[in-house]
Amino acid sequence: MLVVLSLTIIGMMAMTLSSVAADRLPSWNGGATKRAIVDFINNVTEEGSPGFVPPSERIAVFDNDGTLWSEAPLPFQAAFAFDEVKRRVPTEPALAADPMVKAMLAGDIGKLLEGKHHDGLMKILALTHAGMTTEEFDRRVNQWAESASHPRFKRPYLELTYQPMQELLDYLRAHQFECFIVSGGGADFMRVWSERVYEIPPQNVVGSTARVRYEMRDGKPVLVKTLDQLFVDDKEGKPVGIHQFIGRRPIACFGNSDGDQAMLEYTTIGNPHPSFGLIVHHTDAEREYAYDEKPPASGKLTTALDVAPRRGWTVVDMKKDWNEIWSNPDAASNADDPRGLFGKWLAEDIAGKGVLDRAQSTLEIEPDGAVGGSTSVNRYRGQATIDGNAISFGPLITTRRAGPPAMMEQESRFTEAFSRVTSFRIDESDLLYLTDGDGNDVLRLSRLED
Amino acid sequence: MLVVLSLTIIGMMAMTLSSVAADRLPSWNGGATKRAIVDFINNVTEEGSPGFVPPSERIAVFDNDGTLWSEAPLPFQAAFAFDEVKRRVPTEPALAADPMVKAMLAGDIGKLLEGKHHDGLMKILALTHAGMTTEEFDRRVNQWAESASHPRFKRPYLELTYQPMQELLDYLRAHQFECFIVSGGGADFMRVWSERVYEIPPQNVVGSTARVRYEMRDGKPVLVKTLDQLFVDDKEGKPVGIHQFIGRRPIACFGNSDGDQAMLEYTTIGNPHPSFGLIVHHTDAEREYAYDEKPPASGKLTTALDVAPRRGWTVVDMKKDWNEIWSNPDAASNADDPRGLFGKWLAEDIAGKGVLDRAQSTLEIEPDGAVGGSTSVNRYRGQATIDGNAISFGPLITTRRAGPPAMMEQESRFTEAFSRVTSFRIDESDLLYLTDGDGNDVLRLSRLED
Repeated sequence: MLVVLSLTIIGMMAMTLSSVAADRLPSWNGGATKRAIVDFINNVTEEGSPGFVPPSERIAVFDNDGTLWSEAPLPFQAAFAFDEVKRRVPTEPALAADPMVKAMLAGDIGKLLEGKHHDGLMKILALTHAGMTTEEFDRRVNQWAESASHPRFKRPYLELTYQPMQELLDYLRAHQFECFIVSGGGADFMRVWSERVYEIPPQNVVGSTARVRYEMRDGKPVLVKTLDQLFVDDKEGKPVGIHQFIGRRPIACFGNSDGDQAMLEYTTIGNPHPSFGLIVHHTDAEREYAYDEKPPASGKLTTALDVAPRRGWTVVDMKKDWNEIWSNPDAASNADDPRGLFGKWLAEDIAGKGVLDRAQSTLEIEPDGAVGGSTSVNRYRGQATIDGNAISFGPLITTRRAGPPAMMEQESRFTEAFSRVTSFRIDESDLLYLTDGDGNDVLRLSRLED
Repeated sequence: MLVVLSLTIIGMMAMTLSSVAADRLPSWNGGATKRAIVDFINNVTEEGSPGFVPPSERIAVFDNDGTLWSEAPLPFQAAFAFDEVKRRVPTEPALAADPMVKAMLAGDIGKLLEGKHHDGLMKILALTHAGMTTEEFDRRVNQWAESASHPRFKRPYLELTYQPMQELLDYLRAHQFECFIVSGGGADFMRVWSERVYEIPPQNVVGSTARVRYEMRDGKPVLVKTLDQLFVDDKEGKPVGIHQFIGRRPIACFGNSDGDQAMLEYTTIGNPHPSFGLIVHHTDAEREYAYDEKPPASGKLTTALDVAPRRGWTVVDMKKDWNEIWSNPDAASNADDPRGLFGKWLAEDIAGKGVLDRAQSTLEIEPDGAVGGSTSVNRYRGQATIDGNAISFGPLITTRRAGPPAMMEQESRFTEAFSRVTSFRIDESDLLYLTDGDGNDVLRLSRLED
């Protein structure tokens, strides 16, 4: 009797929930995208609906980097790895001598990403993700998560998740979906905080993995991380990982890059159940980032975007579809630019040697740290890391036009100067000074109107 | 308001459930074993208990073969593999020519198990578990499960699960444990039926795995099974698999063999939470099987049993602790022996040539198909497969004592005769006739009193 009564009440609750369903996605603006999500969920979950799918088969998979949280200017796990190396270099000479570590410390991300498998990045990951016990690794990730902050948004990384996607996770779970992360990121890295951050328990995190080694130490069992039998849960690896770890085909898949295309296909093509595919398109440089074919680091989106209409995948226009970006509403305010650094600047002096009147060397700094401009002869672009008054510039990519010798000389001084910059200040005349480690001004710039 | 009322009622239900907890394990006889289980679960789940563990960390792991269902006379997945080979041999000459397939068809299990990694058995598994799509594999497992039956219990294999363990799974789930299988068996094999048989969904099945390959065929995504990067989820592989697939340390672990020792240790040694380890000891030859250090095939139990008292692991005495064995109560009745085959027999005639008066060649047949006796000079043992009136004998293992020439000749005729036997009958005088494929009686035996 109690059971019957209780089930009746739960049934009534479910009906109530269902009728106010749309309100569970308040950060999603009304429109085709939101409607597609709600319609799909209603279709597969309402009793008697033609597309009804039993709860046990309601598997939803989410990419993480760029889908549930930000992945720029670098995937956060790479930031963890870099910060770990920096923390250890002072006391570990062998580490400091490694050529890839040197490249990393010099900000030469390009070198780390060289090669099909990003060998340099893999080396850094190996140094920071193997050789310790799983407990020690968890401790390091937690310490980093508590102390590190995002270069642009000045918040702990774990706070930089997308509010609309958090609402979507809750909405799906309220409809008896089981939600999994299926990410190229390391499973061990994500599992440290996935439950805290997304309410996704470790067993629902599918990621890149390598074997651990079981050992008894002082009579206690430990698991030691290795890089043996590395499994990269990306691209075609994603459906492979879904099969190996979940063993059931999803009916809903959420991603943001070509790395998610295979699992979007696996979810939506030839699925005996109704299925749903969604791509988050980063279109909002102001509140977050805007990229597709040229991402800051990871997250290239070309072919998946091309086939989306044909496959019936829903594409989120972040700028248009999301009225909130961040699950932590303070995140945006920290990224304000009270110092007025962002914008266009004109070089007035380079290393104390002046500039040619007729040769304009310019610098534009965007809120995400992207930099670019003209050397006076060629266009260039690159990435700056900004933290408080500290600023450093990564390698610059330039076009290769030749110009008059004097202008080429200025170009050379201008681009070389950036490599020495460690901090900036803007004075009361609105002049921007970029300064080297000894406090010398290596560049002085005046503001250019847009 | 509705929510509050509903939660109150659910709370009342929970209290009611808790107070009748012991009755949820009706197949467990009262005593220390049952008490240990109930006490542990109460300790970690009752609010305010000193050992309280939050629901999200209530991970319980179960070995499958020999723990949740039977593993004799062969692990059921091996039976599937053998049946698959037999099904395919008539139409696949290459398969028929394989030396390991020949050994298998000749019943030479010893050859298949040779070597540290049981190369022959692995070969058979490779032939039957790789090269097809996951969908095709699932179909084959389902067809086998519907058609095959256990040689002794004459029931579909999927019905041969242990009722006390099924009750334990339910009991744990009612206390917000999440239950996982962690088995040396293939994850793909178990996931086909795990939800049907145990209410354990595919994503909660950790097993031996190999990579699948993602392919598009006729525009549809498929996953092709391979044996690449084989992971054997056994012994030290079990804590490794738990970490890789679950990512959280269990607080309860249930096994039956030395293959489970590492995960029992990982669960119970140095765990910050209270923890529970349990070993199912097969002690009931009558209703199921009795073995530990000499199992029929898999399931050797020596070191884990030795350390159990020191580790505080609970050991189930199947015969004493379980008042029911099978989740399907009909399973036992099918295994009855209305024909009186089981028992001790004395050879009266061998291949039409009589026997020596002074040389007693005997045969004992046990309900599980185990056979043994005296050749008249030496002891022998082996395994028979019985199905209806069909009976066949696997290879016999004998001691190597020499005897008088006439007795050695009889031994030779006696042991050779078994290899030709394909069926049996017992006549009205209670004589047992073992017959070859042409219907010739190759052995006649009379019943020996115990």
